[in-house]
Amino acid sequence: MSVVLLRRLLGDELRRQRLRQQRTLREVSSVARVSLGYLSEVERGQKEASSELLSSICSALDVPMSQVLRGVSDELALAELTAEAAALPTVQPDIAPVSTDVVASAA
Amino acid sequence: MSVVLLRRLLGDELRRQRLRQQRTLREVSSVARVSLGYLSEVERGQKEASSELLSSICSALDVPMSQVLRGVSDELALAELTAEAAALPTVQPDIAPVSTDVVASAA
Repeated sequence: MSVVLLRRLLGDELRRQRLRQQRTLREVSSVARVSLGYLSEVERGQKEASSELLSSICSALDVPMSQVLRGVSDELALAELTAEAAALPTVQPDIAPVSTDVVASAA
Repeated sequence: MSVVLLRRLLGDELRRQRLRQQRTLREVSSVARVSLGYLSEVERGQKEASSELLSSICSALDVPMSQVLRGVSDELALAELTAEAAALPTVQPDIAPVSTDVVASAA
């Protein structure tokens, strides 16, 4: 199972919240008192947000941190299910598949 | 509102999961390939866990990361409610409170 990166999902969720409010990186970073570059990196999942800064960003977005985390845990649960399904053994079909040799020679 | 630290709640949740399984810091840190000191600091909310290391710790505990995050977001929602309630203006009582001067002089 490939590692689903928490910071990537967290960044997606923060960006989603910001865009829903039609606010710019500049505005939110200014209210949260973080640099625009830092907020942008967090949103793109390139930087881990410390607890303090995540709290500032959520305040600036006026969204409870619990709601952001809930969104992330839902996304993560979905990703885990998909990864699990991909890891299941595939069922062998009862009929033989069409040979690629035949197809190739027919072309 | 005092800042509720995410890393503190996350550490609590990880410790809760480990103790529920009656496993030691030594055992889980070894399976997760993190140092015992690091895991201990994460559990006590003294260190932020990176996404990669949080993923390793959850794997070592055999708990989906989404479940850990769900637990944390539930705890966080509760803490937010409590903080909100504490910030509400207190209702002034209709009757005058007993004067402490009277009580003091009666003693």
